[in-house]
Amino acid sequence: MATDPDVPGPHIPRRPDDTGAEVIAARQRYVADRTGVVLDHVTRYSVDPAVLPGNIEHFTGVAQVPIGIAGPLTVRGEHAHGDFVVPLATTEGTLVASYNRGMRLLSASGGVRTTVVDNSMQRAPVFVLDDALAAREFGRWVDDHLDDVRAAAEATTRSGRLVGIGRYAVGPLLYLRFNYTTGDAAGQNMTGKATLAACEWIRDHHPARPGFLLSGNIDTDKKHSQINVLETRGKRVVAEAVVPRDLLRDLMGVDADHLFRMRQVSATGAFLAGASSNGAHAANGLAALFIATGQDAANVAESHASLTYVDLLPGGDYYWSVTLPALIVATYGGGTGLPTQRECLEVLGCYGAGKVDKFAEICAGVVLAGEISLSSAVVHGDWVSSHDRLGRNRP
Amino acid sequence: MATDPDVPGPHIPRRPDDTGAEVIAARQRYVADRTGVVLDHVTRYSVDPAVLPGNIEHFTGVAQVPIGIAGPLTVRGEHAHGDFVVPLATTEGTLVASYNRGMRLLSASGGVRTTVVDNSMQRAPVFVLDDALAAREFGRWVDDHLDDVRAAAEATTRSGRLVGIGRYAVGPLLYLRFNYTTGDAAGQNMTGKATLAACEWIRDHHPARPGFLLSGNIDTDKKHSQINVLETRGKRVVAEAVVPRDLLRDLMGVDADHLFRMRQVSATGAFLAGASSNGAHAANGLAALFIATGQDAANVAESHASLTYVDLLPGGDYYWSVTLPALIVATYGGGTGLPTQRECLEVLGCYGAGKVDKFAEICAGVVLAGEISLSSAVVHGDWVSSHDRLGRNRP
Amino acid sequence: MATDPDVPGPHIPRRPDDTGAEVIAARQRYVADRTGVVLDHVTRYSVDPAVLPGNIEHFTGVAQVPIGIAGPLTVRGEHAHGDFVVPLATTEGTLVASYNRGMRLLSASGGVRTTVVDNSMQRAPVFVLDDALAAREFGRWVDDHLDDVRAAAEATTRSGRLVGIGRYAVGPLLYLRFNYTTGDAAGQNMTGKATLAACEWIRDHHPARPGFLLSGNIDTDKKHSQINVLETRGKRVVAEAVVPRDLLRDLMGVDADHLFRMRQVSATGAFLAGASSNGAHAANGLAALFIATGQDAANVAESHASLTYVDLLPGGDYYWSVTLPALIVATYGGGTGLPTQRECLEVLGCYGAGKVDKFAEICAGVVLAGEISLSSAVVHGDWVSSHDRLGRNRP
Amino acid sequence: MATDPDVPGPHIPRRPDDTGAEVIAARQRYVADRTGVVLDHVTRYSVDPAVLPGNIEHFTGVAQVPIGIAGPLTVRGEHAHGDFVVPLATTEGTLVASYNRGMRLLSASGGVRTTVVDNSMQRAPVFVLDDALAAREFGRWVDDHLDDVRAAAEATTRSGRLVGIGRYAVGPLLYLRFNYTTGDAAGQNMTGKATLAACEWIRDHHPARPGFLLSGNIDTDKKHSQINVLETRGKRVVAEAVVPRDLLRDLMGVDADHLFRMRQVSATGAFLAGASSNGAHAANGLAALFIATGQDAANVAESHASLTYVDLLPGGDYYWSVTLPALIVATYGGGTGLPTQRECLEVLGCYGAGKVDKFAEICAGVVLAGEISLSSAVVHGDWVSSHDRLGRNRP
Repeated sequence: MATDPDVPGPHIPRRPDDTGAEVIAARQRYVADRTGVVLDHVTRYSVDPAVLPGNIEHFTGVAQVPIGIAGPLTVRGEHAHGDFVVPLATTEGTLVASYNRGMRLLSASGGVRTTVVDNSMQRAPVFVLDDALAAREFGRWVDDHLDDVRAAAEATTRSGRLVGIGRYAVGPLLYLRFNYTTGDAAGQNMTGKATLAACEWIRDHHPARPGFLLSGNIDTDKKHSQINVLETRGKRVVAEAVVPRDLLRDLMGVDADHLFRMRQVSATGAFLAGASSNGAHAANGLAALFIATGQDAANVAESHASLTYVDLLPGGDYYWSVTLPALIVATYGGGTGLPTQRECLEVLGCYGAGKVDKFAEICAGVVLAGEISLSSAVVHGDWVSSHDRLGRNRP
Repeated sequence: MATDPDVPGPHIPRRPDDTGAEVIAARQRYVADRTGVVLDHVTRYSVDPAVLPGNIEHFTGVAQVPIGIAGPLTVRGEHAHGDFVVPLATTEGTLVASYNRGMRLLSASGGVRTTVVDNSMQRAPVFVLDDALAAREFGRWVDDHLDDVRAAAEATTRSGRLVGIGRYAVGPLLYLRFNYTTGDAAGQNMTGKATLAACEWIRDHHPARPGFLLSGNIDTDKKHSQINVLETRGKRVVAEAVVPRDLLRDLMGVDADHLFRMRQVSATGAFLAGASSNGAHAANGLAALFIATGQDAANVAESHASLTYVDLLPGGDYYWSVTLPALIVATYGGGTGLPTQRECLEVLGCYGAGKVDKFAEICAGVVLAGEISLSSAVVHGDWVSSHDRLGRNRP
Repeated sequence: MATDPDVPGPHIPRRPDDTGAEVIAARQRYVADRTGVVLDHVTRYSVDPAVLPGNIEHFTGVAQVPIGIAGPLTVRGEHAHGDFVVPLATTEGTLVASYNRGMRLLSASGGVRTTVVDNSMQRAPVFVLDDALAAREFGRWVDDHLDDVRAAAEATTRSGRLVGIGRYAVGPLLYLRFNYTTGDAAGQNMTGKATLAACEWIRDHHPARPGFLLSGNIDTDKKHSQINVLETRGKRVVAEAVVPRDLLRDLMGVDADHLFRMRQVSATGAFLAGASSNGAHAANGLAALFIATGQDAANVAESHASLTYVDLLPGGDYYWSVTLPALIVATYGGGTGLPTQRECLEVLGCYGAGKVDKFAEICAGVVLAGEISLSSAVVHGDWVSSHDRLGRNRP
Repeated sequence: MATDPDVPGPHIPRRPDDTGAEVIAARQRYVADRTGVVLDHVTRYSVDPAVLPGNIEHFTGVAQVPIGIAGPLTVRGEHAHGDFVVPLATTEGTLVASYNRGMRLLSASGGVRTTVVDNSMQRAPVFVLDDALAAREFGRWVDDHLDDVRAAAEATTRSGRLVGIGRYAVGPLLYLRFNYTTGDAAGQNMTGKATLAACEWIRDHHPARPGFLLSGNIDTDKKHSQINVLETRGKRVVAEAVVPRDLLRDLMGVDADHLFRMRQVSATGAFLAGASSNGAHAANGLAALFIATGQDAANVAESHASLTYVDLLPGGDYYWSVTLPALIVATYGGGTGLPTQRECLEVLGCYGAGKVDKFAEICAGVVLAGEISLSSAVVHGDWVSSHDRLGRNRP
């Protein structure tokens, strides 16, 4: 291998056929040569490297992430209906057990109800105009030419549809948030390509021929943000259930009244902390489900945002809902077609075309199971130890 | 298998020895029976299930996540020093290539400088007092008894050290944020156990015997939050580099001045959106590195927060820094000891005791590589297409 | 005066004619009797109490807030055009002097350019449905009946126009953000009345006859919020100017390059702190202008949010913009017609119908003057004292 | 008056004695000459302009802001104890009536309990070091020299005390948040002066002689921020009360259970919106009280932040608390000594030395009165109209 005077040491072996057996082996030797580490387990896999282009560069082996199954979780959604066995890939002990416990409660309560309430994937370019007045007028021009802009965007994709463009003005800048539906794909690439075409059309047809960045950082891709919470990124999905008071007591060891009062405390804590979620730990279930099913695990950054809303019903039963405003998932494209990932999607009946809403509903149901399980555990500890001293003798 | 009248269908097979070959096979059959899906790839793994208790329940197989290698990345940190080949586990095409490109630039620039500037893992209980006055006095009492509280906490752990307790008062509630150092472990469980002991000591010794929740939701575990950004969670790590103007132009095709001006636009966008990061996509590199090395992937929720600060130096070179205020990593415990995960840590020279700061520095260096690569790509697209019309002819 | 057994001491004197001389005097005696304080200055005013109903209850006197004048400020807006002498009511020394200094710089730079880029006042009710599915379908029903909803709302007002309804779903809740234009009034009351009528129409015509709260707290009235920053509340106004490098040096004693580099530092600080503004002190000028001109001073809570975006132009001049996304002002109604308040609006040529955009532009121009003045002062202090050590010798 | 060729038109008349009768009259003529507006009411005031230097420059007259009185409010605090008649300066109709109504309820409930739980005023400089490592070591050096730094700061002030320095690292920057107690003054100027002295001491004694800005924008002065909510700015004050169920029904027309359930909805809305307060309208009462008593009205920007925490007690009574984490008030200095402002402070028994905690407690009590009044009104409207359909028939 030739060395490059600019960079330290020899380059990583690369070939035009980046997943050929020879170059893979060369990279494994490269690792051994440079680090002294012989990859004994990383190199054992059943996936055929020939399917990997498009998913990885410099393929050298695999991470084996343990999968446990949880459930069955009874889901009563529009798209997901039935009892689901849920594969969760994690290395964190108790995670599967905790979610499994929550699923048992939800199923015993008649199941979790799930609804996809909105659906929107973004690419958000920014145009730089001469001044604020020009930026405002530019925004109106874009509105006036929306059909042309849409045509330019949609010419690049079979499944993406531009449903609207949000406008956000700052000084001479106009941030445009292109909102798409993207079929069964998560759609970040699709929307990027479509929006680039749209921006180029705009630049070429607007008299000022304004410059743009394809992302002005309000997409907000791979980042939590308030704009995602408000305006949705990916799927906005709700999971909800009424948990009978008796089941809470018998299965979780918690009193519904006490749980509701403690809910005030944890919701206040989340507000105090400036948190992305006023719930417990949506990220846990989502990360495990994402890794198992070939989702983009980096999207945990956005997808973990959640809004918990609960109510103590007049009869004492507990209404519990969690809303995921930025759940980014796919059942097609990305990592979903790789062998283990596809099998896990198939276990859920969610592989391939027309399944993404079903999968989104299951994700939300899983999250709710985890919320109930962990929240109850936190309160149960308190319940036992504190002899219910809370809230007495207020001023 | 017996059925439970409360829940639909038979339970997932379970045995006292949860990782025995027989019960694993039973669960695989259970999946096949219930879903019709024969797990052909999930069931192929080299990990010995006997090592898995503590990492997973209901083990049924593995997710095979492709690993590509990137680098070498020259790191000049306090703990990480040298050229590193970085394993990244992902199913997202271009991720490895993009980070690899950024690493090449950083290495050609003399390497990335990395510094762990703070270190703090939390469990944050809340005590409920009778009123605000009682809560305030309770806080002072805790301060007065800090040595006892510390002793109670530290009695539960060999490596955890309580370094301080933040106090946050709301009405009759006092949220306490216990800050620990946790050695080479991420420390969420360690700090939970220690804080429970501390809270029980407090409850048993304070005259009011106040009730508490072990988490008042300001930890904030598995959630992004402003308190994490301000007060650190896990490691606070900085990666920084001065990238010569010529290298930016030659390797990235961008002009430093233009990049700096566009930086104003994307930083403003992040502020506008209420984003967790004013940078590009820290979550991508972190998720890939976390999965490869057995970190808790759910911590991407917290760890992806980042603060980019740049400067255009008088001579035209580009100073670029990224600060990760809530990087949660381990080189011991959790998933770090599993076969493929351990190998990947070993490739980085980061497996085991005394390595966590080194690993944290590498994580930050990887993130910076990705920031430079993607940000340059976004600007480059613009640069080519827009004929540098930006910023001209302002009012 | 009769005493009420439920409450301590006699009630405040009240009469059907609440602003009659006799009851005003009775209240002044009441204050003296209960507190021993004879209101010697509070009771001296030139306003005729007969004009006060609708502005105050239990009128007892006035606060005399000193007014200083600043300017002239050259404004080159769409609605405000010319040189303005600006009355500022404050008790904080240096405020008028500092704004005056900034106005001098702006005027010397050719004036401040101002643009109202958006305009939207809200009332945001929330409807509580049976579940998330019902809430989603309810949202579609509202869309389908938008003309009727608009008719119901607009029937209550001459000047208010419903321009759209934002939908935000959480669990079984649907928050609706009614966006109006409100003519020359700030419009909080107008939009409240109109939205109540709209909600009652909805409740009476939707089959579920859903319950609602007139405010679900996302309006967000008298509160800063990210939704205001994104979606505008009141006027979204931009003030911008190109300040010549020489003027910055001669009048402010600061170097444009240095100012630009320090701008990176303060913008990063704002992001770190989770602040409502990445600028300096918009609240100062706005509060002073609001009190002088009879605006609702409580709206400083929303109006002070601001987005600063700057650019160092190729020739070295400094482009400076400030965007106020939630400026709530009126030139009609509220306190604008009271004697001193009206005079101050007249000084600006902004009293009465058709003037609100002009006034909004002046507000933004004043804010920019203050931003430049204070920011330069902060940097100037540093500049002199630190001998420009900043940013040298980076890694 | 000489004209300046750089700026349009003649300057505002100014004299060494800026509050002499002659120059005041000259400015009034200047306004008339330039705008045609004769200031008939603005020019009528009882304040002696000789007392105004330090409060205003270019004094030209006064704003007369109507004052209504509300109360009596029974306060049972540590510092405020008794029944208070509260002067509120506003031009917004119903404000006084609404607060008066809330005060009546609170007084009938036995009064509002108030507690100042923390106290901290800031100036937050930023030091720019060579790199992150230098910044970290610099922070440790500051800690090691804290006594000297404190001595330098406190040498500039009689009443200010430096209680600690928060450290926040970003790249090569170290933001330091100096926290002071400031006696009866709000303390922004005092802390600015003290911190400048401290920074100069640091710069002169640290080997690197590092440059600094006196404000790195995390103070955060005149801006809402999450850091203020967490770490306090000014006073952190709690007002709390237990409102009997019967009084809620009789005086407010609301049912405690229903109010509590609607509380879930509005708290969720605030979280969704990214709001500075999860309550109703603290800014209203604070702005009115601030103007009446000579506070800096711009501090409404920070002071309006609030955290509502409520509980429905087992017997059905309603525990209600509001926490103001950033209440900035003074009873000495600033505008507090001006004639009408001083009278209003005297009405509250809060003028002068040793009164600021008492005044802070009253402010919080007033805010709580307004929260109860408005929240009840919002729910009452719903209650009557909706026939309690809420929450029924959940899934």
